[in-house]
Amino acid sequence: MTAADLRAMVRDVPDFPQEGIVFKDLMPLIADPDGFRESIELLADWARPRRPDIVLGAEARGFIFGGALAYLLGCGFVPARKPGKLPWETVEATYQLEYGTDRLEMHADALKEGSRVIVLDDVLATGGTARAKIDLVERLGGVVVGALFVVELGFLHGRDRLDGYDVHSLISY
Amino acid sequence: MTAADLRAMVRDVPDFPQEGIVFKDLMPLIADPDGFRESIELLADWARPRRPDIVLGAEARGFIFGGALAYLLGCGFVPARKPGKLPWETVEATYQLEYGTDRLEMHADALKEGSRVIVLDDVLATGGTARAKIDLVERLGGVVVGALFVVELGFLHGRDRLDGYDVHSLISY
Repeated sequence: MTAADLRAMVRDVPDFPQEGIVFKDLMPLIADPDGFRESIELLADWARPRRPDIVLGAEARGFIFGGALAYLLGCGFVPARKPGKLPWETVEATYQLEYGTDRLEMHADALKEGSRVIVLDDVLATGGTARAKIDLVERLGGVVVGALFVVELGFLHGRDRLDGYDVHSLISY
Repeated sequence: MTAADLRAMVRDVPDFPQEGIVFKDLMPLIADPDGFRESIELLADWARPRRPDIVLGAEARGFIFGGALAYLLGCGFVPARKPGKLPWETVEATYQLEYGTDRLEMHADALKEGSRVIVLDDVLATGGTARAKIDLVERLGGVVVGALFVVELGFLHGRDRLDGYDVHSLISY
């Protein structure tokens, strides 16, 4: 199975969640045993030499890939969640989305000082979510050893906001 | 590592999300590489002989365990999500929570006829979420081969709503 096979499992959904946005629906890929397995193994191949301790995934699709990647790498998993979802003391970052603004929280005790963190999400769009996660990791004393994505929407130039970090995606548009 | 070790990594948070509820916070377990790995392997040991094709997880914590379990079992993963999050045609179920009511959606094309499905969630409380997922799977032509949980709040009698199904949890209270 190649990156082209994975790409063929991504479904374009026009006008979701807003008119004019073409949404990249990864659900057909995730529901396919071979597609899901291959995508996790390709993510792990890139992440492993960076010796991460923790995979950080954003709510909610980032949890699916993130849980599997953390398992395969032998890492712990830490979530970044929408406000009010985490029960313990939190730190928060505000960021801009492709459509609107939003906030993300992490538990204040989620990382040990010096933890090596892979910041993972399903889609790199404008880079707002990834940038917010990087800021949170660094405020909590962690070290971002890579920013990893299944899909990258290159025409939105999200990499520009991740300058200075090691960025990788499996499928680019 | 034993079930008692896993249990020691679950944090009690009083009065979350409402006064009088003691929330079982699984984040310390998920962030611990050994705890997370062991919990996924114990879930897989129970699920494997039931020969599932698909792991179905509910938004959002069910995605973390569900993604990892699907990877380890060589299954696809299918999400049940809050209304409005899935971009394609959906089917919906309404259910009662420990605190309030809610709705879950699945993509109408998420399952092949006869797919063998493990219904997974982090916590079995009143059984409302699990019951809704089972109903959705069966409406889509799937076969529920097990209902699997990391934590079970036995005092809420969620198993009563899952009568006739094969139910298992790693940690019971």
